[in-house]
Amino acid sequence: MGKNLRRYRPVPFTRVEVNDGFWAPRMRANREATIAAEYQQLESTGRIDAFRLGWKPGMPNEPHIFWDSDVAKWIEAASYSLATHPDAALEKRLDEVIDLIVSSQQGDGYINSHFTVVEPEKRWADLRDNHALYCAGHLIEAAVAHFEATGKRRLLDAMCRYADYIATVFRTGPRQRRGYCGHEEIELALVKLHHATGESRYLALSKYFVDERGAEPNYFVAEALQRGDKRPPHFQLSYYQAHKPVREQTEVTGHAVRAMYLYSAMADLAAETGDRTLLTACERLWEHATGKLLYVTGGLGSSQDNEGFTADYDLPNETAYCETCASVGLVFWAHRMLQVDCDSRYADVMERALYNGVLSGVSLDGRRFFYDNPLASTGRQHRQDWFGCACCPPNIARLLASLAGYAYSEGEHDAAIHLYVAGKALLNVAGQTVTLAQATDYPWDGAVRVPVGVERPLRFTLRLRKPGWCRKARLSVNGKGVRTPIRNGYFVVDRTWRPGDTIRLNMDMPVTRVYANPHVRMDCGRVALQRGPVVYCIEGADNGSSLNALSLPKHAKLTFAFEKGLLGGVVTIRGHVRRLTDAGWEGALYRDKPPKARPAAFKAIPYARWDNREPGEMLVWIREEH
Amino acid sequence: MGKNLRRYRPVPFTRVEVNDGFWAPRMRANREATIAAEYQQLESTGRIDAFRLGWKPGMPNEPHIFWDSDVAKWIEAASYSLATHPDAALEKRLDEVIDLIVSSQQGDGYINSHFTVVEPEKRWADLRDNHALYCAGHLIEAAVAHFEATGKRRLLDAMCRYADYIATVFRTGPRQRRGYCGHEEIELALVKLHHATGESRYLALSKYFVDERGAEPNYFVAEALQRGDKRPPHFQLSYYQAHKPVREQTEVTGHAVRAMYLYSAMADLAAETGDRTLLTACERLWEHATGKLLYVTGGLGSSQDNEGFTADYDLPNETAYCETCASVGLVFWAHRMLQVDCDSRYADVMERALYNGVLSGVSLDGRRFFYDNPLASTGRQHRQDWFGCACCPPNIARLLASLAGYAYSEGEHDAAIHLYVAGKALLNVAGQTVTLAQATDYPWDGAVRVPVGVERPLRFTLRLRKPGWCRKARLSVNGKGVRTPIRNGYFVVDRTWRPGDTIRLNMDMPVTRVYANPHVRMDCGRVALQRGPVVYCIEGADNGSSLNALSLPKHAKLTFAFEKGLLGGVVTIRGHVRRLTDAGWEGALYRDKPPKARPAAFKAIPYARWDNREPGEMLVWIREEH
Repeated sequence: MGKNLRRYRPVPFTRVEVNDGFWAPRMRANREATIAAEYQQLESTGRIDAFRLGWKPGMPNEPHIFWDSDVAKWIEAASYSLATHPDAALEKRLDEVIDLIVSSQQGDGYINSHFTVVEPEKRWADLRDNHALYCAGHLIEAAVAHFEATGKRRLLDAMCRYADYIATVFRTGPRQRRGYCGHEEIELALVKLHHATGESRYLALSKYFVDERGAEPNYFVAEALQRGDKRPPHFQLSYYQAHKPVREQTEVTGHAVRAMYLYSAMADLAAETGDRTLLTACERLWEHATGKLLYVTGGLGSSQDNEGFTADYDLPNETAYCETCASVGLVFWAHRMLQVDCDSRYADVMERALYNGVLSGVSLDGRRFFYDNPLASTGRQHRQDWFGCACCPPNIARLLASLAGYAYSEGEHDAAIHLYVAGKALLNVAGQTVTLAQATDYPWDGAVRVPVGVERPLRFTLRLRKPGWCRKARLSVNGKGVRTPIRNGYFVVDRTWRPGDTIRLNMDMPVTRVYANPHVRMDCGRVALQRGPVVYCIEGADNGSSLNALSLPKHAKLTFAFEKGLLGGVVTIRGHVRRLTDAGWEGALYRDKPPKARPAAFKAIPYARWDNREPGEMLVWIREEH
Repeated sequence: MGKNLRRYRPVPFTRVEVNDGFWAPRMRANREATIAAEYQQLESTGRIDAFRLGWKPGMPNEPHIFWDSDVAKWIEAASYSLATHPDAALEKRLDEVIDLIVSSQQGDGYINSHFTVVEPEKRWADLRDNHALYCAGHLIEAAVAHFEATGKRRLLDAMCRYADYIATVFRTGPRQRRGYCGHEEIELALVKLHHATGESRYLALSKYFVDERGAEPNYFVAEALQRGDKRPPHFQLSYYQAHKPVREQTEVTGHAVRAMYLYSAMADLAAETGDRTLLTACERLWEHATGKLLYVTGGLGSSQDNEGFTADYDLPNETAYCETCASVGLVFWAHRMLQVDCDSRYADVMERALYNGVLSGVSLDGRRFFYDNPLASTGRQHRQDWFGCACCPPNIARLLASLAGYAYSEGEHDAAIHLYVAGKALLNVAGQTVTLAQATDYPWDGAVRVPVGVERPLRFTLRLRKPGWCRKARLSVNGKGVRTPIRNGYFVVDRTWRPGDTIRLNMDMPVTRVYANPHVRMDCGRVALQRGPVVYCIEGADNGSSLNALSLPKHAKLTFAFEKGLLGGVVTIRGHVRRLTDAGWEGALYRDKPPKARPAAFKAIPYARWDNREPGEMLVWIREEH
């Protein structure tokens, strides 16, 4: 293996305090409402009980093939919460659930509530679709999270046994299966297990799964033949990112969440093992994803059919899939790329997803969830308490519970601020503990004050991201403007820091009109409004119906103001539009005179907060008048 | 029963000659290519052989539940062709197919190639979904067509036996089934059978099916219970137009073809039986369909999911379903309404469908077919030789073979011209044979000369439609301008006609910009081009890719010219647009500066003729610049 390519380490969320007005309330709702509500759902739907292995044919709540992953992601979320906010009742509940899971472990180490009782003969018969290794991966992530939060090894040890058993089943040896999972996840989980245990065999197993993926003869094809399954497969191999070896993949394809989890693991392995071919593949896929497939909200996946990608620039708005999990996965991938290369192209996308397509996934009260996050709606779509396929709710819960971990990185002689969030972080730099505090109203305001706390003078390089949305920013140290080089989108301040030093960053944050590349046919002649990292939408509650009848004159003035009482406190954007009316149409559907337009006022709210009031239409891309 | 409300009778296609440059070549292709190609498909897919009743489990080509209807519609098309163009080989082929069908008739009169051999126990078990009466209906239409074309009674007699058997099974008597078919069709077929045979019992059976539809307790619900089918039905009752009695239905719902066939039967029955409640229902449904649900091409059905209607004004373009059969059904319905009430609102819609959404269903060479007819395409969609569900190809074939029958009506002292098509028609008016000839280049030109041929002076009223698309028209009789009243969209010329009289109608036919009601959110800020009845589109072959990047300045001059060598000879529209370019985008997906626009020329072709050249994008609703 080559040299570790990771120049930075994320500062873990346990060393970062968030006390701002934007994220802190959402993280509190996550802690106080979401985690409990999701447990109730896991309980009442039978997902917890499934681990008792008591299900028999004819009984209700037949354990589903990916139920284990829902419980696992909840354990992960609850463990993160416990790590920052001790809670004896939650800790006890976690212990109970974990006891149940461990008690379901088979003699050989296997854990799976579906295949142990429902279809034991099919344990590894359909890697393409059965999600067994996917479930194992989430349980491993849960085990690592619980161990790191509590020091308890119970689930970790069980998952090590399970992983060790898996390692006997797979790989290229005689009587081993040369397969990998149809839904990537275990690959990135094994890297985490490697870090938590120090055991390199878990890294090696992850590497095997990634390296083998898409190799010829194709495992999924051979496996289907062996099952005697002659039906044409519902999805092509590219749906599973298994159409060719991962290093040869140049285009992001298939199921969006699968793709994001795979690329996250590839980024991990590239960094850990110094594998530049893998890194190059990641960079190529990144360019494709963000240059041709990304919604302005940070959403991914244009089609419900494959829950994923279709063609370049095919970004329909009303039927956008944009699964919450896909944006969560994009954050995972971006965050991993960022540790290798402190380049704002990664942090910009991570921020875009976090403030928009991820956060839209959960209601303000933390109790309702979007699975898909379209960019236009006729108002028939609403967040739900739960889903039959319930991947998204616990995914956003685990992300919000660990959100603070995405803001900072530390390195040998380096520190980096990726996200501007009021609060405080403790970094280990050059053998010292460095405190980086942030005082800011970001994302509603572009001024950030960063007191840099060192115990004694210390030379290190501090990088502060100049966001891609920002045209103009001024940096000062101790009140004096400094001309700092900007490298890869970061202000690079290399100096000897002394106690009392303070940086001020002032980012101009006007309302911005965002345009899509004209190859995005759906957005031609349209404009999205953005301010700072926040993408806006217009919603029925403020603007009535027929939102596509509105058009924004090209030079219309747009104003913004913070509205304390609205949607938990948000900056709204206002201006004047022209609204087509049906006056004079007398019920006609078509005519040879254009509809008349009248002036109207409009108000836009942050996209992520739509559908928190009465039902109504929603639109991100507004028609623009020339 | 009340007085027959039908004031007009259609002049049958056998008395109308079409010799224009627009329809005649398409009718020739239909006669010379389509009918033979479709027979080959019916043959090679086993649809003809199915009537041998030789299928056994394990054999290929298991007869499908609605295969019989494909064969029936082909018989109908071939019979119409035979009626105007004798063809001994075709007549023989028809005789053979008909012999086969008749030989498959069971002792009780039943004919169905699927239920006789594949699922005999389920003959009437699932009226909701099994299409058995639908198939019977198409066979009845075929029998009537064949009888009228050839005078041969073989299929007609068999279908009378079948209909008589059906009459014993259904209705409200003891041991009868109080049901009706989930796919309407037999209702309108029985009216035709009544006309062909003079037997009023067929009219009564049709009336029973229509009257019973949607009555409580709902037959489809009861039937599912009786089958022990506890699954929630895939579609709601409104999909089948069976959610309430037809006279109480105020909104067009569900599957578009089903709806059109039902409303056609309702119009028939209303007229035949003098049932004004039914007529009122038809008029209400007409208003809804044409005021809220109709595509500008005459297409119907917004969604693939239900092959039908969604919500008012929900008219997506790229994902429009617009099944060819639905537009064919709309023509049937419009034509029936028109005989009751010579109102151009019916003829306008009939014409819109015929010239656009119907005709797009078949390629210029008559060999390939669209099932769905969207109004925008990325170029991945093409006409196909055939379909697993092959309703559309023979539907358009039977319509084209009988197209001439939609142009004229005759009445007691009345004659009406609904469609302008060069050729000649023989009408029976006031006991005389009246010849109405048309000399015109319609739809490429708005001048029509109509020599009115009478043997001796005859007073009658001649109605000539002033099309809805036409703003200005001048009428002259024998070279003298006349001020004629326009009633319900028709010039009404009431006079004593003498040998040698000639009418000239000059309709201004400029290129027209058509706008959609602003409630149609997809078309806000967009314009469609129309000239005469022909709706235009822009296609990749003329305009390259990224068609949504084009915008038409509001006051841009548009010119038109006939291009003899293009697509069989069409009038094209040209003008200048502005085209957004990705110059300077350097691969970016989003940015805060709008894309630059440069001037470009464009050319539009008739929508119905797209996808007859190399594959490429297509767009009907073009962005308009203000």
